[in-house]
Parts: sequence; C-alpha cells; structure tokens
Amino acid sequence: MTERIEVSLRERSYSIHVGAGLVARVGEFIGPRGQSGVAVVTDRNVAALHLDRLLTSLQASNIAARAIVLEPSEETKSFRGLEQLTDELLAAGIERDGIVLALGGGVIGDLAGFAAGVLKRGIDYVQLPTTLLAQVDSSVGGKTAINTTKGKNLVGLFHQPKAVIADTELLDTLPRRELLAGYAEVVKYGALGDAGFFDWLELYALAGLDGNAAYLERMIAHSCRIKADVVGRDEREAGDRALLNLGHTFGHALETATGYSARLLHGEAVSIGMVLAFRLSAQLGFAPASDAQRLEEHLRRVSLPVSIDDIPGQRPDAHTLLSHMMHDKKSKQGQLIFILARGIGKAFTTADVPAGALENILSA
Amino acid sequence: MTERIEVSLRERSYSIHVGAGLVARVGEFIGPRGQSGVAVVTDRNVAALHLDRLLTSLQASNIAARAIVLEPSEETKSFRGLEQLTDELLAAGIERDGIVLALGGGVIGDLAGFAAGVLKRGIDYVQLPTTLLAQVDSSVGGKTAINTTKGKNLVGLFHQPKAVIADTELLDTLPRRELLAGYAEVVKYGALGDAGFFDWLELYALAGLDGNAAYLERMIAHSCRIKADVVGRDEREAGDRALLNLGHTFGHALETATGYSARLLHGEAVSIGMVLAFRLSAQLGFAPASDAQRLEEHLRRVSLPVSIDDIPGQRPDAHTLLSHMMHDKKSKQGQLIFILARGIGKAFTTADVPAGALENILSA
Repeated sequence: MTERIEVSLRERSYSIHVGAGLVARVGEFIGPRGQSGVAVVTDRNVAALHLDRLLTSLQASNIAARAIVLEPSEETKSFRGLEQLTDELLAAGIERDGIVLALGGGVIGDLAGFAAGVLKRGIDYVQLPTTLLAQVDSSVGGKTAINTTKGKNLVGLFHQPKAVIADTELLDTLPRRELLAGYAEVVKYGALGDAGFFDWLELYALAGLDGNAAYLERMIAHSCRIKADVVGRDEREAGDRALLNLGHTFGHALETATGYSARLLHGEAVSIGMVLAFRLSAQLGFAPASDAQRLEEHLRRVSLPVSIDDIPGQRPDAHTLLSHMMHDKKSKQGQLIFILARGIGKAFTTADVPAGALENILSA
Repeated sequence: MTERIEVSLRERSYSIHVGAGLVARVGEFIGPRGQSGVAVVTDRNVAALHLDRLLTSLQASNIAARAIVLEPSEETKSFRGLEQLTDELLAAGIERDGIVLALGGGVIGDLAGFAAGVLKRGIDYVQLPTTLLAQVDSSVGGKTAINTTKGKNLVGLFHQPKAVIADTELLDTLPRRELLAGYAEVVKYGALGDAGFFDWLELYALAGLDGNAAYLERMIAHSCRIKADVVGRDEREAGDRALLNLGHTFGHALETATGYSARLLHGEAVSIGMVLAFRLSAQLGFAPASDAQRLEEHLRRVSLPVSIDDIPGQRPDAHTLLSHMMHDKKSKQGQLIFILARGIGKAFTTADVPAGALENILSA
C-alpha cells in the first residue's frame, strides 16, 4: 500500500509518497517534465546499495539520468561541497527545467536541495530519503543547508521539493542504530502534538522497527502527516514550526559537546533532549511527572539513550552544555527559546526558563 | 524631490526610493526593526567615498551598524567571497531579525543579497546602489548571484530586498565612463517597451548625464518604474521579464570574447548588443531600419559604443561570438532565446533566428 500526504503551500505544494518499492515507480512521480535533464545526487555508500535500482527504474520510464556520487561525510555539507556539486550539475548540463533527485540521508538531502535552490537561481528537486530520519523529518519541509566554520546549518534556504518519495524498503539495509536514531524523531511527533499517536507507538512501534512493514509504513506516513501539517501552517518557522524542535536545544548542546561524532547520533541526542525537556517541564510544574516518565520508558524500551549518562565516554558537564545552549541558532536577541510540554502531545514554546532549573536538569 | 516606486509582489512587495540626499534619511526607510543587527556590506572604493556618510546617518537614527568592507573586484562575487561574507556576518552576530545594507554597485548588491538570502535561511536586506547601472537595473528585482568557474551568475537566488534606496547624489563621484555604461540600461527600457520614454531621453538625457539633477532623477525613477512593472508581472522570469535582456545575448558574447575586462564594460556591451538586436530585427523584416538607426544615433550621441568595431583591441570574430551565444545561460534545451523588436518600444522574444542572419550581423 502506498500512502500519499499533501504538503499545502500554495504554488509550492507537493506530495509525500510513502510505501514499499516506490523506487521502482519513480517515473510516475517525476513525470515527463523530468526528461529534460535529471541528475541523481547521492553518496558512495548509498550508491553501492541503491543507485542501480534507481537508474534502472528511471531508464524503464525513458528518463535519462546522470549520477553524481559524493563522499559520504558530514564534511560534504560545506561551502566546498556546494561549489563542487553545483559545478558538477553545470558540467552535466542541467538547465532551468532540469531536476535533481536527492538519494540519501540528511546530508545528501540538505546539500542537494540547497544546490538545486541556487543553481541558475533555483531548479526543481525531489527527495528520495534513504534513512528513517530523512524519511520522517529532514526530507519534508524544504529546509536545506550547509555547515560553516561558525556552526551547523547556518547557511541555507527554504526550498521545497517537488515531491518526497519515501520507499520504506530502502530502510532494510539501514544499520539498527541509525534506524533507532531516526525513530526518536517519530516519537517526537507524538510527544509534541499527538498523544493518540504516542499511544499507538507504545503498542506497535517496536514491531515496526523489528520488521513489520505495515507498522513501519504507518509510523512513517503519520509522522510525515504531522510534519506536513505543521509546515503547511508555518513554512518559515515564524511560529508553530518551532515545536518540531522539541528536544533539539538540549540535543544540539549534547552534539556540540560530543563533537558531532559517532559517540552520539543526532536522533540519539534528540532522544535524550526530549527526556530532558519533559523533565524540565515537570520540574517547572507544567507537565505531570508521570508523562516525563512514560516518555523516558518508551524510549528506553526501544533501546534509545535517555540520559546524559547513557552517552559513552566522559560526561559533558552542565556548564559546558549551558554555554552551548546559549549559542544555539534559534536564539533571538540572546534569548533562548525552549520547547516545553504540558504533557504528552502538548508542547509549547517559551522564553521563560530560569537558569537554575536548567542547571538542575543538566547536572542531574 | 523624492520619487517612490512600488514593486508589487504580494508579501515580498517593497518600495524603491529615488532622490538626492537619501543616504542622510536612511533611518526612515529601515525603521526600528533594523535596530537588532545591521551590517553594511560595501567595498573598499565605495567605503572611501560614502561609508562615513551612511554610518553617520544610521547613528543619527540611533541604529547601531557594523561595516564589512570587501575587495572591490568581480572576484569577490565567488563562492569564496560568499563564504567569507557569511562568516563575517555570523561573526558580527547578525541574527534572523537582522538586516544587511548593500552599499555599492552590482558586485556588492548581488553578493550581499545572496548572502542575506542564505544566512540562517534568509534574512532581510536593503539595496543602496552607488552606480547608475545598479540604481536602474541590478538593485531592482531581487536577482542575486555569484560567478562560478563555469560562467557568470550561474549560482544565485531570487531574494527580493526590503527596499531600494537610490540616492542620486552618490552618482556625483562616478567616473563618466561608468555613468554612460549605466545609461545604456536606461535606453534599454525605452527601446524595449516605452517609445515615449525614448523620445524623452533623446531630448533630455544628455543634460541629465551632464549634471541636471532633476533630469537624472527622472530617468532613474522612470527606469525603475518600468523594471518594477515587469518584475511585478513576472518575478522569476517565466515570461515577460526576459524582455529586460534586450541586447544582453549579444552583449554577453562580446563580454566573454573580451574576457569581462575593462576593454568593455557591461553597459557598453549592452549598448552594442541593443544595436545588433535592432539591426537583426530590421534585417529579418520585423522593425523599420529607421528605428535601428535612431537607436544607434542616440547611443552614439551620448558617446556609447554602437558597433563591434568600437571595441578597442582586436575585433572578436563572428564564429567565436556565435559559439559564446550558444552557451548563454538563457538557452533552453540548446535553443537560444532572442529578444528582437518590431520598433522602438516594441520588443518581443523569439527562438526563431536563422544562423545565417546572425552571422551576417556579427561579421558586418
């Protein structure tokens, strides 16, 4: 079964397709307009696993495509990587009516989307996310970016894709740890705004992660539906879209403290960050302590880290974390915006968090 | 007197202000929202002439601003330049509600607008053009770009400014040759779509270029009005906006052949290019030969170059020029789009230009 979710953004509207085996049907989603110049952008690891299948599928639809294979590294998401990619797209003869297919995880999606957004002042692109994290989060909503020496994702664009094609079969080759890290973002959607979904996840998510294709598809599709709804209301993060950062302010600080290394994947940092945000919410009297505990238990049950002590290696100290939080990209005039919750499914933003409460949470 | 022209683009609408001494009133146009982080981006040459005046004016409005002074070179408009500028803007603490003031000619406007467009996925900017070319053309309409090794302006964005402030007094220090080069774009507006304006230019333009401030202001404001009208109808150049490229396909080929050097300024290339486009239109039977001649005479009278032979140094040969034209950025699926005319003020686009006719024009 294939699910189709609409992202409603007037002339920038598009569909997210979720289902097993969609790569084989990619021509349906791109259509004849893609025939004037198609470039598949991917990385070496993903290419080894999925590129042939995609090129064969395109060929079957009579769509001629060139592949551009990049280094699988966060460093690809840099000014240098952007320049190399735009040069290769230009060398491949991609014109204004051409299209970029981003086949990969967040790095590829963010970079290829940005490159498409600036090539000849903007050409179309389609996301073909190959990780759970990318399927439920980074491929949806049009955020593209590169990292700079001053920080991550500080230079980029809102450039909406023409379609997102989330082929759940691509996840079969994903290492368990990456699958779980992506699952943290799934839990986030329930925790921030959909208590019923959270209930469902408690019952069925583990089966989905362990191989039940129908459950896996359902959790991806529902996550996309929630994100599409939020993005449709607030494309450029002037309001509600900030709720999607639940767990991320803590998470980014943890990632910075651990050097954005394999010690702590982004989704793992978000998992811990969500628990900290709920603990803080409980401590400040916003949320029942039982909801914070319920979130923590569910995350622990699927084997995601839930506390700072779960991070291997030396424990990042509270003051370092606090200082990283103060430099977060989302800060406005030096004021840090927090996503807290009144309970499972009831997140809200606030700028009023006493430093003492924060320190408590970070040192506990 | 100050003229105010509206560019109507829904939520991206903005005003162009044209008049003498506007830099002294810049606070009026930026308003209190600019107070949270203002960066003036300029180059060393412009800084020496106008930066103090601008900073004093901002200070008088209680707007704290930092200045970022770049190298005055086309090479600044590169990936390297973009990275440096975004790094400096980040180091200056410019946040999402900050604002970039682009004080300079086309290079500064294109680069600073692009940097603002991608800094934290897009912040506001205001154009303060300091050349006639920038005041009547490049600062209006939101085209931003950098050059790549594959060609000029191949990477960029449509990012509309929040305002354009064209202070005509800034042109007092502009070398005559640059003033004239900018004037070619003024003539373009008459030639492509406003025969009455062309009549007026024949009578008053030279006086305006020679120091009559009222005439100068009037020609700038009217040029902006025409461009604003076209951009309002076709922001992303899907149709009518292409008419603004009158003379540019020939012009770019001439600039490429002369290495984008001081041998031939952009406006000078456009001047020759417009004459060639009108001669071609006449030869193909679209326009009366008398209109081609009238255009040529007016341009010659203000001392702009009107034929390939007017370019100093070795004459670029027809075949080289033809091959440059075939690689123009505006080509669609290998087909070159030409802007021709049915007479002064009556430009149109066509893809049907016989190669033989083109060669005739280029070798004449």
